[in-house]
Amino acid sequence: MDELVFATACEQRRLIGERAVSAVELLDAHLSQIERVNPIVTAIVTLDIDGARVAAQAADAATTAGGPLGQLHGLPVAHKDLANTKGIRTTFGSPVFADHVPTFNDLHIDRVQAAGAITIGKTNTPEFGAGSQTFNTVFGATLNPWDTSRTCGGSSGGAAVALATGMVPLADGSDMGGSLRNPASFSGIVGLRPTPGRVPSWPDSSVWSPWGVEGPMGRTVADVALLLSAMAGPDARSPLSRPEPGSTFADLRFDRDDLNGVRVGFDLDLGGLPVDPAVRQVLAPIADLLAHLGAQVDDNTIDLSKAGEVFQIMRAASFEAGYGPLVDRSPELVKDTIRWNVEAARTRPLSDMGWAIRTHGAIHAAAVDFFANHDLLVTTTVQVPPFDIVTDWVRTIDGHDMGNYIEWMRSCSDITVTGCPAISIPAGFTPDGLPVGVQLVAAHGHDAQLLQLAAVVEAAIGASSQRPAIAS
Amino acid sequence: MDELVFATACEQRRLIGERAVSAVELLDAHLSQIERVNPIVTAIVTLDIDGARVAAQAADAATTAGGPLGQLHGLPVAHKDLANTKGIRTTFGSPVFADHVPTFNDLHIDRVQAAGAITIGKTNTPEFGAGSQTFNTVFGATLNPWDTSRTCGGSSGGAAVALATGMVPLADGSDMGGSLRNPASFSGIVGLRPTPGRVPSWPDSSVWSPWGVEGPMGRTVADVALLLSAMAGPDARSPLSRPEPGSTFADLRFDRDDLNGVRVGFDLDLGGLPVDPAVRQVLAPIADLLAHLGAQVDDNTIDLSKAGEVFQIMRAASFEAGYGPLVDRSPELVKDTIRWNVEAARTRPLSDMGWAIRTHGAIHAAAVDFFANHDLLVTTTVQVPPFDIVTDWVRTIDGHDMGNYIEWMRSCSDITVTGCPAISIPAGFTPDGLPVGVQLVAAHGHDAQLLQLAAVVEAAIGASSQRPAIAS
Repeated sequence: MDELVFATACEQRRLIGERAVSAVELLDAHLSQIERVNPIVTAIVTLDIDGARVAAQAADAATTAGGPLGQLHGLPVAHKDLANTKGIRTTFGSPVFADHVPTFNDLHIDRVQAAGAITIGKTNTPEFGAGSQTFNTVFGATLNPWDTSRTCGGSSGGAAVALATGMVPLADGSDMGGSLRNPASFSGIVGLRPTPGRVPSWPDSSVWSPWGVEGPMGRTVADVALLLSAMAGPDARSPLSRPEPGSTFADLRFDRDDLNGVRVGFDLDLGGLPVDPAVRQVLAPIADLLAHLGAQVDDNTIDLSKAGEVFQIMRAASFEAGYGPLVDRSPELVKDTIRWNVEAARTRPLSDMGWAIRTHGAIHAAAVDFFANHDLLVTTTVQVPPFDIVTDWVRTIDGHDMGNYIEWMRSCSDITVTGCPAISIPAGFTPDGLPVGVQLVAAHGHDAQLLQLAAVVEAAIGASSQRPAIAS
Repeated sequence: MDELVFATACEQRRLIGERAVSAVELLDAHLSQIERVNPIVTAIVTLDIDGARVAAQAADAATTAGGPLGQLHGLPVAHKDLANTKGIRTTFGSPVFADHVPTFNDLHIDRVQAAGAITIGKTNTPEFGAGSQTFNTVFGATLNPWDTSRTCGGSSGGAAVALATGMVPLADGSDMGGSLRNPASFSGIVGLRPTPGRVPSWPDSSVWSPWGVEGPMGRTVADVALLLSAMAGPDARSPLSRPEPGSTFADLRFDRDDLNGVRVGFDLDLGGLPVDPAVRQVLAPIADLLAHLGAQVDDNTIDLSKAGEVFQIMRAASFEAGYGPLVDRSPELVKDTIRWNVEAARTRPLSDMGWAIRTHGAIHAAAVDFFANHDLLVTTTVQVPPFDIVTDWVRTIDGHDMGNYIEWMRSCSDITVTGCPAISIPAGFTPDGLPVGVQLVAAHGHDAQLLQLAAVVEAAIGASSQRPAIAS
């Protein structure tokens, strides 16, 4: 069973298709793993065993009946607890919604289920997804499976840990300032922040915003592409949605094993962000590895010196949009970092948004220029290794003070500002045995190319096959 | 010659293709008309006769050489003076840029030229396009060709008047709060505000903004589609750009002459905006006309009660983004309405943007709901007839005070907030002989359907063939 739950999602799907394993058997194997490991790490916070069993039985009936099966047919998945799931408790990590049961699925949940996946439950997230440390007052904290005294990061932390420990072969997440990438790095798995609009959101209270996106997580790049194939594709209600059908990602070939002719900018600190030496030590050798694979590596980068301030302003407006009324209604039920974001919106002038719009445009143009001569930007996913579980956010990095709870996330949030797709893949471990991810960024809209190049790097590094001891 | 310059753009292009007229002949005919009429109305503010002649001669050489010709081959066009035109003075209607000559074309200018159009010059606009009254301190005011004591509206006022008077067969414009529709209504021509991203902008200081768009103007709906076919189509640098190629609009068929099965919401005041009785009198009979054509007409509408406030907030941020630094540098060189917009951004809190993002999303959702059961929303383009040229903006409508210089534009700017494409077509004349437009709105992304349905309504109304006396 251990081998089955740690098989890739692609392999599990193949076994289902060949009737070598049934959806019910696959579900049971994962439920066993959840029963055994989840109490240690608190990754999955709501289980729908009955619903999952009914769905798995229906999936097996469909397999028996013959006919085309969805690309995720029979694969157990868990959804981030920020996504509305019809009939399944959805708390957003907030005590306000501790008993909330939506009457509808968010669009990407519908799509994953329509592709044949079996929903087994919900994964933990910080309150309203705010901050890259997965803890809340409803379910507590999700622990890092590589060292349970440490955080798994966040905000898609439950998803990342469920994947790292073999509880699910695939899981969705979401990302504004790094929430698909940070926990992937901290948990030793793969997380893709797609181009905004690649996975359309509906319903969506901020339809024109490119900041928050949904995306796929998995243990390998190919698995992430598999899940993306179900999540992606246009929806007429979402004005940012991109035209390529999801099948684009189902049909991707991963047969390349070199980077000949690939132009890479390698810049671990994005022009000056502090990076912990333990992280730098893992990532620095990748430059040579890329060159060895045939890439043309230089140290060009995108000027992101103003990206942090753009992000702070956009985030403040976004949090006021999402949580302002709740903060007014029940301030005592909202954590202080969210109140801080809302307060920032109420004390800053609207003209800050004017500056941010203009500067966001300049950063987009700088990214366009960079990718006119490069295929990839390779950088740090997280500037620190996984930190103590009792620390809510990082106060210093390599001797530099962080001014607020999101500043330490800049290696991810600065990339968000570019509007480009970015993926974190396992890069190795610190001397303490903590996972470190490397972040690969491609031009806006080039998600497919990013996945293909990331798969080459992933294979060369060879760290995606590691699993934490507590999961075995 | 009079007949030639008032032929439709489609007809002029056909004559070029059949070698019945040369590009040089067509240019000369339009230059004669400009020479005769432009001094009366000040529609075209910069002429590039030499450049146009060289381009027309090259176009004729290409015609003689054979081979495929662009869809605008040999057609003289003028560009709004807000668009950067390489080597041709571009003032943005501002004294700051009175002698400014860009070194590059904006993307949509490149596209129109690549389609074979002959650039003859630039059309007048209010300072930085702010306000629907075309006057500035560089060139003065553009007069309404139907009554030169009145305004042609704006901000694409020069373009609208150039079209109405046969100075050009096609002209581009742009629209944030109605600038492609308002002057079309006031000048008796057709203006389309496309879905944001239909005509990608580059360079673009606010790449993620759906507010300001470029679009086509013409004397008929089919002509507008022809110009759109050159302007539309994706560009990888513009993240909002829509995927359909421009040829979508070149291939549109306009052979329908009924509205059987078309579901129309007819609401002249968008739920309560004041509308001048003279405008209402022209537009009210259109409900019966639509029914007569076979449409299912009801009085359903989209709740736009909060759209005005959303627009004010977004506009303030947008003006700070675009003009804040200039206002700081040279306040005396910026007109008071623009300073007022920038000042609004500096005195309002950023949290207003949070409210606006959330409310914008709700209005988008309301539009999605409306268009689930309707093909068109039909409403007023401008709430007043063309007003006195010495009035900078409208203070009262039908007894209601307007609070500021953009409030009287709400019949257009409220539609902007929906994110939907909207077209103004000539609907008739007031008893004083002033043109009145009707605004047709379709679902987000449905520009092609909008054009096809608008052509049916246009033919049934039959007002597009009128021309002002001064132009004949």
